[in-house]
Amino acid sequence: MNIELICSGTELLTGKLNTNASFIGEQLSILGLDLSLITTVADRKNDFAKILSLAKSRSSVIIITGGLGPTFDDITVETVSEILGIKTYKDKNVQLAICQFFEKRGITTPSANNERQSYILENAKVLDNRFGTAPSQMLHFEHISDNKKTRKTIFLLPGPPRELKPMFQEKVIPYFKSYQLGMKKSLKLHICGMAESLVDEKIRATIDLFADNNDVEFSILAHQSLIDVKIAVKGEDELLVDETINNIKNEFVNILGDNIFGYNDDTLESTVQQLLIENKKTISVAESCTGGMISSKLTNIAGSSLCFKQSVVTYSNESKITLLNVKDETLKQFGAVSENTANEMLNGILNLSKSDYAISVTGIAGPNGATEDKPIGLVFIGISYKGDNEIFKYNFLGTRTDIRERATTVALDSIRRKILKTKNKTKLSKGK
Amino acid sequence: MNIELICSGTELLTGKLNTNASFIGEQLSILGLDLSLITTVADRKNDFAKILSLAKSRSSVIIITGGLGPTFDDITVETVSEILGIKTYKDKNVQLAICQFFEKRGITTPSANNERQSYILENAKVLDNRFGTAPSQMLHFEHISDNKKTRKTIFLLPGPPRELKPMFQEKVIPYFKSYQLGMKKSLKLHICGMAESLVDEKIRATIDLFADNNDVEFSILAHQSLIDVKIAVKGEDELLVDETINNIKNEFVNILGDNIFGYNDDTLESTVQQLLIENKKTISVAESCTGGMISSKLTNIAGSSLCFKQSVVTYSNESKITLLNVKDETLKQFGAVSENTANEMLNGILNLSKSDYAISVTGIAGPNGATEDKPIGLVFIGISYKGDNEIFKYNFLGTRTDIRERATTVALDSIRRKILKTKNKTKLSKGK
Repeated sequence: MNIELICSGTELLTGKLNTNASFIGEQLSILGLDLSLITTVADRKNDFAKILSLAKSRSSVIIITGGLGPTFDDITVETVSEILGIKTYKDKNVQLAICQFFEKRGITTPSANNERQSYILENAKVLDNRFGTAPSQMLHFEHISDNKKTRKTIFLLPGPPRELKPMFQEKVIPYFKSYQLGMKKSLKLHICGMAESLVDEKIRATIDLFADNNDVEFSILAHQSLIDVKIAVKGEDELLVDETINNIKNEFVNILGDNIFGYNDDTLESTVQQLLIENKKTISVAESCTGGMISSKLTNIAGSSLCFKQSVVTYSNESKITLLNVKDETLKQFGAVSENTANEMLNGILNLSKSDYAISVTGIAGPNGATEDKPIGLVFIGISYKGDNEIFKYNFLGTRTDIRERATTVALDSIRRKILKTKNKTKLSKGK
Repeated sequence: MNIELICSGTELLTGKLNTNASFIGEQLSILGLDLSLITTVADRKNDFAKILSLAKSRSSVIIITGGLGPTFDDITVETVSEILGIKTYKDKNVQLAICQFFEKRGITTPSANNERQSYILENAKVLDNRFGTAPSQMLHFEHISDNKKTRKTIFLLPGPPRELKPMFQEKVIPYFKSYQLGMKKSLKLHICGMAESLVDEKIRATIDLFADNNDVEFSILAHQSLIDVKIAVKGEDELLVDETINNIKNEFVNILGDNIFGYNDDTLESTVQQLLIENKKTISVAESCTGGMISSKLTNIAGSSLCFKQSVVTYSNESKITLLNVKDETLKQFGAVSENTANEMLNGILNLSKSDYAISVTGIAGPNGATEDKPIGLVFIGISYKGDNEIFKYNFLGTRTDIRERATTVALDSIRRKILKTKNKTKLSKGK
């Protein structure tokens, strides 16, 4: 099966990241299917028509994203109609669904433009869009070349990632699954606290054991301070595939230990949340330079109210004093960015919230605010379990955003390790 | 000039984000040049050769990234050689540079594989790579079609983003600058508080005035609750180009008014920050369901300490009471997600921070926590200027993340409008 992706959208040619392409590529590769080609083309009918003509003859499945919106530059349906020679009709049900979508939002008369979205290709299957007005369409068509007829398939999917992603998973993946022979499964390990090259060095011997085995693939990818190691295994026997993945995983766990913080969809914050809920513990946060980033991560997951009590963003000195009881002398003698301030912020938030664990962060994110002895990137991170405080000092490099993101990641990883350590302690003392 | 980008790399078809494509697209669009097409193709000679043949005939400049490495699947040089019919030779200087690159890293004998990287296309200009072993190449070639010769240009650039980005800026951008005739400038308008289709409808008459003018282009893009309208104008006279853009902009400002919150690199939060600093005013935030997202946005910009005082994330009822003085009776009678609670949170944060403006948010982000009369997505947003409180009620749709993001956007947009309104009031009373 030759699967080709066409992404329509002028913005994708002028700087916007094509996250749909990587999402679709990844989803298909989990199924063991690979995209053969990705073409990004402007919302211009002429350009789009040329690429579609090429795709029609060279690929057996064409996936199109974008160009289903209500405005003048949304040209996917009419171009597909023209190039495949298939008529369109105005679909009553789709029109009704669009009206209902707007009614939910308190708008009774959708704009005339939205009417354009109810045109459907003849014989196409309409795929409902839960998150937007543009319905998706799926169609089989016949391509004739050298007097030979071939049955091909085309998908018309929306461009906005928040519509595309659920649509792809719910409506398109099942189609490919039904066509699949054999299987490919994969497992991602998430690692924090080690450099990519060190991870590579440590697991190299295991990877080399599979050098001659084409059914087993490894990849390693670093983004910010996090490393992903992916194990992919092909085969026809599901039990054997699972066993192979599991054996390799266990080997990596032996080598990398607690540096692995999760698998597949896990994130640092979901791991921290899970550890807290499992141990029936609560957390609170006092942030300065991270400005709410740690809190917003910890509350981004359903169920966070079970473990997250509160946080304060004490940006000004004044608020550090009034909210967290940081001493005026401490700020004067050591400065807002200091071990002492981080420690008092930690005590302050513990007092305020009565939570079990706490995080405090104070630092210089830049580009301004550096002094002779305090460079941009200097960050103090405090973590505590019931008053057992630890303060770490870091010098992060990069832009303001880099520094804030790294501080957030390191703070979450530090509290994760603290929970693991204190959890084991409790177990040990119970065992006595 | 028709510029086409070909990205070679199997990993880009199986889930890796193509950051090179967005980088190159953005860099060229700053120069007023647009990519006409991006094709992502696997490191397979057959596939790559087909795309290169198409590119050779349809584009005047071809930029290739990837496939210059030392391993077997790096096939760019040999495929270009074959398709363009240009021989290669082993370049002594390049070979020397590769050896020196390894010596710096303490490796005296580069692997035999690295020798492959010293093959250069005849008559190509070698572009040194400061960050890796693969040299880039730039070559003019003649394409003959319908007995007509056309001079075309091809760039062979490395795939790793940390090599590609400096290489592109230092060696490729100057080439395009030297060839530039005339110019293309663009302006982006950012809009909040209107549906995409309504924006389209309102500005349609203006856009239609330019229907026959190929030098003026419009595009419209919605992401989350924000709409971008881009005006792009080509021409040879810079003053005329500027004037055209400015006239269209003024027309759109007349039509869309305060719904336009900024231009080009502006964001909602940077606009709010700028308004606050201009008016020497401060802000504080009390967040519940947004969990720190509003605060982290407002502190994401350098200089935020000039206007951002503090925020609290009062997730639990307990913290709403102790930190913000929300009344126990209010929580019992109306619930944590209610107009009354939003109002008391607003008073609480104003009391605590003594800031001029304040935002409060309380809502149900889901997927749990809904009751019979309070559905998922119900959010109360409070804004205040010195005790003049307004509370708005919303029913947002979508996932937990969608609801939190929409609440954040609407809260920032509401406070922006409040600042505009109160700023004008002060002016009016001064005028009395």
